[in-house]
Amino acid sequence: MDIERTLAALTLPEKAALVTGHNGWFTAAIERLGLPALMMTDGPSGLRKQVTSSTDFNDSVKAIAYPSSALSASTWNEDLMRQLGEHLGTEARAEQVSLLLGPGVNLKRSPLGGRNFEYLAEDPLVAGKLASAYVQGVQSQHVGVAVKHFAANNRENQRFTASSDMSPRALRELYLRTFEIIVKAAFPATMMTSYNKINGVLNSQNKHLLREILRDEWGYHGAVMSDWGAVANHPQSLRAGLDLEMPGKGQASIDEIIRAVETGELDEGTLNKSIRHLLHVIQDWAPAAEASTYDHAAHHAFARQLADDGIVLLKNHHDELPLEPGKSGQVVIIGELAEHPRYQGAGSSHVNPTTLKTPLEALAASGLKANYYPGYRLDEDETDEHLADAALAAARAADHVIVFAGYPAASESEGFDKNSLMLPENQTDLIGSLAKANVHTTVVLQNGSAVEMPWVHSVDAIVETYLAGEAVGEATWDIITGKVNPSGHLTETFPLRLTDTPMAPTFGQDPHHEYYTEGIFMGYRYYDTHEMHVLFPFGHGLSYTTFEYTQMIITKNEHGATITFNVTNTGDRAGQAVPQLYVANHATHAPMPTKELRAFTKVNLAPNETKQVILKLNRRDFSWWCEPKQRWQADSGDYEIMIGDSSRDMRLQTKLTMDFKNSPAPVTEETYLSRIVADDQLRELFLETVIAPLQANEDTPSMLTATDQDGQLLALQNRLFLNMPLRATVSLGTPADLINNFIAAANQH
Amino acid sequence: MDIERTLAALTLPEKAALVTGHNGWFTAAIERLGLPALMMTDGPSGLRKQVTSSTDFNDSVKAIAYPSSALSASTWNEDLMRQLGEHLGTEARAEQVSLLLGPGVNLKRSPLGGRNFEYLAEDPLVAGKLASAYVQGVQSQHVGVAVKHFAANNRENQRFTASSDMSPRALRELYLRTFEIIVKAAFPATMMTSYNKINGVLNSQNKHLLREILRDEWGYHGAVMSDWGAVANHPQSLRAGLDLEMPGKGQASIDEIIRAVETGELDEGTLNKSIRHLLHVIQDWAPAAEASTYDHAAHHAFARQLADDGIVLLKNHHDELPLEPGKSGQVVIIGELAEHPRYQGAGSSHVNPTTLKTPLEALAASGLKANYYPGYRLDEDETDEHLADAALAAARAADHVIVFAGYPAASESEGFDKNSLMLPENQTDLIGSLAKANVHTTVVLQNGSAVEMPWVHSVDAIVETYLAGEAVGEATWDIITGKVNPSGHLTETFPLRLTDTPMAPTFGQDPHHEYYTEGIFMGYRYYDTHEMHVLFPFGHGLSYTTFEYTQMIITKNEHGATITFNVTNTGDRAGQAVPQLYVANHATHAPMPTKELRAFTKVNLAPNETKQVILKLNRRDFSWWCEPKQRWQADSGDYEIMIGDSSRDMRLQTKLTMDFKNSPAPVTEETYLSRIVADDQLRELFLETVIAPLQANEDTPSMLTATDQDGQLLALQNRLFLNMPLRATVSLGTPADLINNFIAAANQH
Repeated sequence: MDIERTLAALTLPEKAALVTGHNGWFTAAIERLGLPALMMTDGPSGLRKQVTSSTDFNDSVKAIAYPSSALSASTWNEDLMRQLGEHLGTEARAEQVSLLLGPGVNLKRSPLGGRNFEYLAEDPLVAGKLASAYVQGVQSQHVGVAVKHFAANNRENQRFTASSDMSPRALRELYLRTFEIIVKAAFPATMMTSYNKINGVLNSQNKHLLREILRDEWGYHGAVMSDWGAVANHPQSLRAGLDLEMPGKGQASIDEIIRAVETGELDEGTLNKSIRHLLHVIQDWAPAAEASTYDHAAHHAFARQLADDGIVLLKNHHDELPLEPGKSGQVVIIGELAEHPRYQGAGSSHVNPTTLKTPLEALAASGLKANYYPGYRLDEDETDEHLADAALAAARAADHVIVFAGYPAASESEGFDKNSLMLPENQTDLIGSLAKANVHTTVVLQNGSAVEMPWVHSVDAIVETYLAGEAVGEATWDIITGKVNPSGHLTETFPLRLTDTPMAPTFGQDPHHEYYTEGIFMGYRYYDTHEMHVLFPFGHGLSYTTFEYTQMIITKNEHGATITFNVTNTGDRAGQAVPQLYVANHATHAPMPTKELRAFTKVNLAPNETKQVILKLNRRDFSWWCEPKQRWQADSGDYEIMIGDSSRDMRLQTKLTMDFKNSPAPVTEETYLSRIVADDQLRELFLETVIAPLQANEDTPSMLTATDQDGQLLALQNRLFLNMPLRATVSLGTPADLINNFIAAANQH
Repeated sequence: MDIERTLAALTLPEKAALVTGHNGWFTAAIERLGLPALMMTDGPSGLRKQVTSSTDFNDSVKAIAYPSSALSASTWNEDLMRQLGEHLGTEARAEQVSLLLGPGVNLKRSPLGGRNFEYLAEDPLVAGKLASAYVQGVQSQHVGVAVKHFAANNRENQRFTASSDMSPRALRELYLRTFEIIVKAAFPATMMTSYNKINGVLNSQNKHLLREILRDEWGYHGAVMSDWGAVANHPQSLRAGLDLEMPGKGQASIDEIIRAVETGELDEGTLNKSIRHLLHVIQDWAPAAEASTYDHAAHHAFARQLADDGIVLLKNHHDELPLEPGKSGQVVIIGELAEHPRYQGAGSSHVNPTTLKTPLEALAASGLKANYYPGYRLDEDETDEHLADAALAAARAADHVIVFAGYPAASESEGFDKNSLMLPENQTDLIGSLAKANVHTTVVLQNGSAVEMPWVHSVDAIVETYLAGEAVGEATWDIITGKVNPSGHLTETFPLRLTDTPMAPTFGQDPHHEYYTEGIFMGYRYYDTHEMHVLFPFGHGLSYTTFEYTQMIITKNEHGATITFNVTNTGDRAGQAVPQLYVANHATHAPMPTKELRAFTKVNLAPNETKQVILKLNRRDFSWWCEPKQRWQADSGDYEIMIGDSSRDMRLQTKLTMDFKNSPAPVTEETYLSRIVADDQLRELFLETVIAPLQANEDTPSMLTATDQDGQLLALQNRLFLNMPLRATVSLGTPADLINNFIAAANQH
């Protein structure tokens, strides 16, 4: 397509139609010019190609239900995320889909966030790198993505109107960072703006976000569409940098744009910019002419593999797990979720699965023999004494108990937030009783995000399966039986209690504002910096084998550093380690978390095998967003490089001094004596040009010449004096001329 | 004085001289017009009339050293604070002082704040009410005050230039609230601006603070002076509302003002406003012609009484205290601080005491017999084994041990912040050893603000004497021997660890900014809302007797409520209770602390005596600062009224429903379905004007008409739908006309 010629040929009504969704799932076609409609469907974890006439979210064509992002991200596995993208891209192509809406990459700021299950992490690096691989995978199959929800959409309640109010630094370092990584690494076809405002400006009308940051700073070349119903004023959105309103309000939307151009409210040049972006999208992502298919069984197997790689073994006291078939005595399975599992969340990510395998259905194939007792009713909060008693009796008689726990489907969904981290009361009570009845109890969790576990110390093992997709049953037994060695690690902190979360008193409280008062201290950045006890830390995940980290070597230059170290599998099973590189910044005179994740990888190791890992840090990995300067800044000085198995389990640690060759700040009347005293040159100059003349002239009795009992100048050592700027020394009786002379001389160096 | 006539008679150079301090301690005199110089001295806890020629802070005339504000505020006793003011006013008058610089009323935001010892509380109500009484006391003696430091000066490091960055709500509800209470209740002669900036604007140049809030909103009529050296640009300060630069830069300052008026940089009308304020101050607070004196012994006795009333008994396991003379077996006193006590802080509040009574000196008069062992060296961090061993041996042989602990003088001062809450290591170690050597150990603390106590569970009793003034020794024994029944209560939370403070990662970290990211959740508002364990809660203080609270009765009207209840002394000693009234707000849809102190009093009760307490709450006590509306707002709905002995010890509790007759917000396109569904009238109107037409017209297939399996409308019950605003329902296929009609009709009600 010749973009400019096509643009010139389009009439104003045709342009107006192009920037407006034709309906819920198609862009407008301009048949006169051979421009096809593009089909888009929901689905970061599986296609949700909705039956168009339906008003029911769950009425979609059958598709593979992959694990929700909460679980797939727990793999920390970029290769698998790329393969997930490839699988989804293949499926989308088979359904003639041009744009697959997703991935959802907002950070899990509060565990109450209603949509956390379809997001990746509390940390922007993990989310950004995993999502980049996913996007590359989808787009390698000639299907575009819509990276959503841009940006800072971290709560669901009042999501259409609430403002995410935060500092520029928190926005840059956390809530935009993920998107920045993806845009720069994976060139997503489209970006989807979120419903919310940032600092009072609706994202779909936010020029700073859509033009200045996304396009001008990050160099984004794709198209920007709205979330469904996020546009309040379409012409204003186009002016701010939005290209496509979805789903559009039909002819009313088209008329609105025509009128806006005619009245001058919208410049046609601005409209043309959006048309160019959309023509590029049509050119690049129009559906292939030839039909394609895919192997459902192979894709189901991949859904299982992905879940296998993501499931997190949170606790394994006395090696309770694995329970190997034939060697584990009498096993009893308890919990209705084994029969009716939660394996996906509700809302736009909901998939109509091809082949659901529940834990009960998958049991036989696992080789494990066990009786099943429902134990509780999933759709109730209260204990069913009859069910509970039967389960308890069975537990008492068994050698091992496996209890499935989690939320009913209605309690975790797009569209509203949770208000508690507690599992339903009947399940909590039952787990407590089971743990008393049998010490060898394993809890298998099916939930979208962090939960509280009052029974954590009473049970032997805890397996976090999140929402594991249609292969939930197979993957669960793969881990429990040891067929697969668990290698998932948490991408979010599990706090001890909801009230431990930094935003507990404010989250969702104000209908109009969400106050990001914790700033950059979110997730492990908060818990670690405040040295708080947590239930399970960020990055945590156990294995059936053990890993040893040795021989860290760092090489550096003025642009960054390269860290190499060895990981050895010291156990007797093959397994995967997830080395996490954290950096502690001691160089910066600004608030800093005690450490931040700056690199990670996943390493597959046979027993006794050792592999060398190489991780690179560039200047940005040492940088923070300096608000006064409105730019990233890397400071020279000391850093600590740590390799850990979680944010609380460091295995290697060493100091690193970086020199980024920044020039020192000029001396001004606001320069403190402390800086002058600490700098040999400045101190000598100050003594020479300020103190000496004061001492020589009795007409200037300045307190700057005050001395202690030993005759030493207080100005050089007393903390009260050191904490005065040059300006304030004038009010101590120092002539302003002397200070001005000193400032001028100091800046000549 | 005829102010206007005097103003008219002043020349420009005379005006310029008046708005500039003549030197460190005097305003300019205009002898031609009979305008005297006013003398001012430092001193919220005692006069610091500096020997003018000296450059040594501690070189001042002798005066009574009253307890530092940390201790006097712990009295929670408005009567005593008024008497303190009267005593200080009398002394100031005897020294020909017109303006006594103080009280310092900034909130104790972080326990690291270097100046906390001379501030009153972490809560603005306690600080505001106690300071108001103090101001009334001073000014009743015809001496003016300077309420300082206005405002939000909560850290010392870089105090001349750092910006206190916070939300308008935190500023209004916390950091300005104290000043507002004082201005409205006590009409202080002057206000002193602090060094810092608020949200980037230097306070001495902050028109919003000095004109819009202080004068226009609060109706302040006094004069505003700068802290010493706080002015960066004098003409700009005058424009912003400052009246007097202190201490002034001599003739340079005067010339600067003359030039500014001549060039038009400063309007002479603006200058005249300041002159009017200053002439009023001269008229009202010029020194009395006749000389006066005061009774030093009586004033010393008051210093003792004040300390007696403020000392806080933090812990008293097994009634270890009191140790009554003649009944307590062998007592040993340990700790150099018994011999060389810390009894005041350093900096501008430092007093040259008249009659210091150390604990050792006061021991004999207390009747208690005890040997003394220094145990540690105060000026060192490391243990002196010889001293420690001698103390331990004595402790082992004794029936009771009293160990004095605290900071050396150099570590708590105006001018810089602390960086740890730990006592010196040698003291911490010694207390731990002593507690092992003798279970009957009492720790007496001398410190300016909250400290960590790793030994808290090992000792029997803990007595917080803060910095108790020159009667430190007498007051300490008054409490320990039971001559006085302790009645002090903490006006600050003692956290378990520094890292538990909300601002731990950010306090003092950025040289240019202090981020008040905790917002309104400061002090107990933070710890209580996050349900955190603390060492000792806000409001805590033990007694040698016990109190019972009964019969709470609430009467209310649309403006407020009156709460009455009974307090009974159920023990066998006279004592004073400190009933604290907390309000929990369940009516407001905005972030709220779990409770806030809204009233308090102190009640003196003989054994078995009962008194009725009456506390009043007005509309403001139910209000919060609504940022979008920029005003205080009281919401109708449910509140909880609690009477406690601390923020963690509630004795009476009841629900209160208030009706403030606010009109409901209008319905707009941003009104959520949840509100419409919850309101009977709106729901009916919505069904009639939106749903019914949609159902009747097949051409409008809106998802708003979607139903569940039972045929019930999802829009009336499904949380995803309820969480949509009217605007978003248009994108579900609902014609905008229907929505607009509904909005118009809804607002006609």
